[in-house]
Amino acid sequence: MLAALARPTVGHLDPYFLRVMDEIRAMSRALFGTANELTFPMSGTGSAGMETCLVNLLEPGDRVLVGVNGVFGGRMAEVARRAGAEVTVVEGAWGRALTAEQFRAAATGTYALLCVVHAETSTGARTEIAPLREVAEELGALLLVDCVTSLGGIPVELDAWGVDAAYSGTQKCLSCPPGLSPVSFSARARERLAQRRRPVQSWYLDLSLIASYWGAERAYHHTAPINMLYGLHEALRLVLEEGLAARHARHARNSAALVAGLEALGLELLTPPEERLVPLTSVLVPAGIDEAAVRRFLLQEHDLEIGGGLGSLKGKAWRIGLMGASSTRANVELCLHALASALEAQGRATDRDPLAAAAPVFEA
Amino acid sequence: MLAALARPTVGHLDPYFLRVMDEIRAMSRALFGTANELTFPMSGTGSAGMETCLVNLLEPGDRVLVGVNGVFGGRMAEVARRAGAEVTVVEGAWGRALTAEQFRAAATGTYALLCVVHAETSTGARTEIAPLREVAEELGALLLVDCVTSLGGIPVELDAWGVDAAYSGTQKCLSCPPGLSPVSFSARARERLAQRRRPVQSWYLDLSLIASYWGAERAYHHTAPINMLYGLHEALRLVLEEGLAARHARHARNSAALVAGLEALGLELLTPPEERLVPLTSVLVPAGIDEAAVRRFLLQEHDLEIGGGLGSLKGKAWRIGLMGASSTRANVELCLHALASALEAQGRATDRDPLAAAAPVFEA
Repeated sequence: MLAALARPTVGHLDPYFLRVMDEIRAMSRALFGTANELTFPMSGTGSAGMETCLVNLLEPGDRVLVGVNGVFGGRMAEVARRAGAEVTVVEGAWGRALTAEQFRAAATGTYALLCVVHAETSTGARTEIAPLREVAEELGALLLVDCVTSLGGIPVELDAWGVDAAYSGTQKCLSCPPGLSPVSFSARARERLAQRRRPVQSWYLDLSLIASYWGAERAYHHTAPINMLYGLHEALRLVLEEGLAARHARHARNSAALVAGLEALGLELLTPPEERLVPLTSVLVPAGIDEAAVRRFLLQEHDLEIGGGLGSLKGKAWRIGLMGASSTRANVELCLHALASALEAQGRATDRDPLAAAAPVFEA
Repeated sequence: MLAALARPTVGHLDPYFLRVMDEIRAMSRALFGTANELTFPMSGTGSAGMETCLVNLLEPGDRVLVGVNGVFGGRMAEVARRAGAEVTVVEGAWGRALTAEQFRAAATGTYALLCVVHAETSTGARTEIAPLREVAEELGALLLVDCVTSLGGIPVELDAWGVDAAYSGTQKCLSCPPGLSPVSFSARARERLAQRRRPVQSWYLDLSLIASYWGAERAYHHTAPINMLYGLHEALRLVLEEGLAARHARHARNSAALVAGLEALGLELLTPPEERLVPLTSVLVPAGIDEAAVRRFLLQEHDLEIGGGLGSLKGKAWRIGLMGASSTRANVELCLHALASALEAQGRATDRDPLAAAAPVFEA
């Protein structure tokens, strides 16, 4: 995949490159589960995609309802505030999913936008999106969903769920280097864009300008990050070659095996089973264990990087990602073996062999 | 250089990557001719760098004086307006430089910011920056300069000229794929940032957050586009290996040879000699010549891409870039030979051999 990045840079209106762009759009629609015409990658990382959705769909004074059960929900609220919106936060526990009832309970009156994170990378919780469509209808709101850590790893069905706008990143389950953010907008969202009373505050992220470049007109906006787009094209091709169903099954299987192994080690997970995110698993740090020392041990002895807790989970959790090409049996086994050694090095031995616990899950 | 893009992606807080970041900052300072601590690449193309400077330095209601002698000056004015600023435009002829007197004549009262494009890519005019420092002082303004097509091709001396903020792109004279925008801010500019009354409208481009990641704290903001930064690191290293003085001399020599050849072909240039930009030369399309047919001929017969006129110069000019690694004697000769053939194909023969006219310039 990395080799695709090093293909010769061509002009941003070169016929070869325009074909690459069209194929990226078609493949992105397949991954997002949508027929949305306005589907393409923004020239920035996932946070740029988030800001694109918010600044284009909102105008100063608009009311926004934002689910916050982790870092990225909090970031949506902050970006919406900076766009001049009046934000109502739906507070959820970190590590838990958000429910339609929580949104209903926090809402008062109508809203322009209901925002939610599908897969909270900071905690490992997965919120069901389909039930929020009804809530959005009740509140007169469009539904905006963060799919950064879900796209390519677990099912994403924008059209079936009734999502109006979504963004993702390239460096999670797509296994592409960071630098681009696929976005998608429904017909309803496009109507909202067409009815804006004032220009979008950001020129760089203004969809009405960017869509002209990605659409039939090919109007120059900014120079596209050509080589990053080669990389994304190859990454999307690899996802579809594997097949979405097979890819989701692989992610689910490896994650379940990891969980079986972690439980054999006597470790507790942050999130209840039915709300757990497949590509990212949060483990509670047992009492008496130096969590940073464990991460250092994994990195130095096993060349394995896992995440620490963020925000209110700092020092209290580890975050283990199994995303895209990294979701393999070998990585699960390496992680379980390394974690067992790290805990043993801190005097916490275990009776059960985590690899033996994981094995039947791989073979199921 | 492209091979650097394909180096393995590491974590964005990996010690190896942090060293790459520090070296990028040091090398960027050398290219910009500055000791500015706050010098680093933004995760977006040149237009993202432009927007970064404007949205961080401006607050709603601030007055801004913007020189507009081409597409990119016009874009600065538009971005400033969207940031809520009150914009005064200094109108200049397309293809001509802007002077301190033009800025003085257009100004009324004081301004927060004076904005100017050093190298107008849309026309090939170069505006002298040093004289504008005095104008900025008179108006109480900070001085913001677009260095997209100058950095790495012609001298840029932010500190000697008294520039407060500048941005560039990677795909022009740095010969790096597009996708990043080096920016730099003076102590005065940082003071302005520190005194802001309200948060920057863009979260993605908020310098107070991004500087914490690029600075000693290494605080996570957004995931850095790792592989693009590898590419930029290698591009900056190559620039400094050649040496800035030698690189500028190479660009100047090849551009002068191109001009000698174009004049031998009887072609007229858009910009007077003393205002001409080295890395980009605009040629007026002679009467009776189909300009688009010439560009098609160059692309199809000689695999050579030149630009058409933009904005008010559409259909009236060709833009020939000699930037970074593409500024070579071989490319100048290819271009002159191909252009002579294209004109001949449209029945416009020439008495003089453009390559013979260019030769002594290369050897001077």
